[in-house]
Amino acid sequence: MSKETKAIVLLSGGLDSAVTLWWAKRKGWRLYTITFNYYQRHRREVDSAEKLTKAADVVEHKVIDVQYLKEIADSTLLKEASLNIEIKDRPGIYVPARNTVFYGIAASWAETIEARWIIGGHNRMDFKQFPDSTPEYFSLFNRLLRIGTWIGRKRPIRILTPLSKMNKVQIVRLGLKVGVPFELTWSCYMGRERACGSCQACRIRLNAFEKAGVKDLVEYELPIP
Amino acid sequence: MSKETKAIVLLSGGLDSAVTLWWAKRKGWRLYTITFNYYQRHRREVDSAEKLTKAADVVEHKVIDVQYLKEIADSTLLKEASLNIEIKDRPGIYVPARNTVFYGIAASWAETIEARWIIGGHNRMDFKQFPDSTPEYFSLFNRLLRIGTWIGRKRPIRILTPLSKMNKVQIVRLGLKVGVPFELTWSCYMGRERACGSCQACRIRLNAFEKAGVKDLVEYELPIP
Repeated sequence: MSKETKAIVLLSGGLDSAVTLWWAKRKGWRLYTITFNYYQRHRREVDSAEKLTKAADVVEHKVIDVQYLKEIADSTLLKEASLNIEIKDRPGIYVPARNTVFYGIAASWAETIEARWIIGGHNRMDFKQFPDSTPEYFSLFNRLLRIGTWIGRKRPIRILTPLSKMNKVQIVRLGLKVGVPFELTWSCYMGRERACGSCQACRIRLNAFEKAGVKDLVEYELPIP
Repeated sequence: MSKETKAIVLLSGGLDSAVTLWWAKRKGWRLYTITFNYYQRHRREVDSAEKLTKAADVVEHKVIDVQYLKEIADSTLLKEASLNIEIKDRPGIYVPARNTVFYGIAASWAETIEARWIIGGHNRMDFKQFPDSTPEYFSLFNRLLRIGTWIGRKRPIRILTPLSKMNKVQIVRLGLKVGVPFELTWSCYMGRERACGSCQACRIRLNAFEKAGVKDLVEYELPIP
């Protein structure tokens, strides 16, 4: 086994996961990335993820097809419906048990390559909408990986969420510090050629860049004030 | 939401999961089944699973393709190699973090259809080889589902493992009691037309039937004494 520390970063292609990847890069870890392809409109994000992995010089990048989520899970994120509605008293953009599946798959790879860390870009604004992104959730998941894998007995895999106490402005600032090529990231919920500038994700992103005092170099459809 | 209790059974097509399915059927629950297709040689098992769902009259059966496990996880179960070797100090037939992925996917479906139970056929002989099949593991997983899903706040999904204290003979006896059509199940590690009768899975199965005092109606390649 290599003496170097390996880290698997869950990379959506969005801003948060890109900052997470460069944060891990600065640690000097050997980087492995995993992107889940499960939402047709986000093909754009999958492309962004690939560009980011090249820029970050990762050892290996995997795109895992989990389109079956569309068939078994109800979420507006997986359908063409509006993103701001609720389904069964939960936010429409929540995908049932999504992170349990994603971190399970990442753990499978981590145990295989004997990675030390699995890293996700969940931030403190996610907690309210996604119960599978809270510190309590990841703390339990780490215990599950310790007792539920063979490698856990000698060298447990641990999930890290370095952005979990940050808001979007702080994440942009950290990204500037660690040198993220923001122009390669993709946040827009629409999968069009340029970002729409008006969906919830675009608005949060633009607001964060504005507050951080930097220009967002991603191309937008509308002129951004 | 239906007032009826829904249960999702993880159905491999093998003996244990078939007994689990009929056990759940006897409870009067509305049955949903999920089979994971991840191992070419076990196409035979996937077919058995389908026959079992028809015999058990399940409401809905899903076959989920998780072939990516072959790409990210090392296990002799996923390769053509011998099944009795060890990889990195763990049993060769262990698939890294497999149940975390499988129960995550089942949980995604369970939250969507508002199922009350997810049921797996793990038995007490599995514990030694599969750390992701122990009572401690499922106890933690249930806590994860309680805090990590939206439905967990009002009506938690719970994983049940009714065979967890049983050995194979006891499982065969329970199967007889609940009326499992054993001839539709498939245990052999080989994916040939008839069961080989000599792999580890066949030997354990045949031994259990013998001790339970019943004839196994599955067809074998060799005459079974």
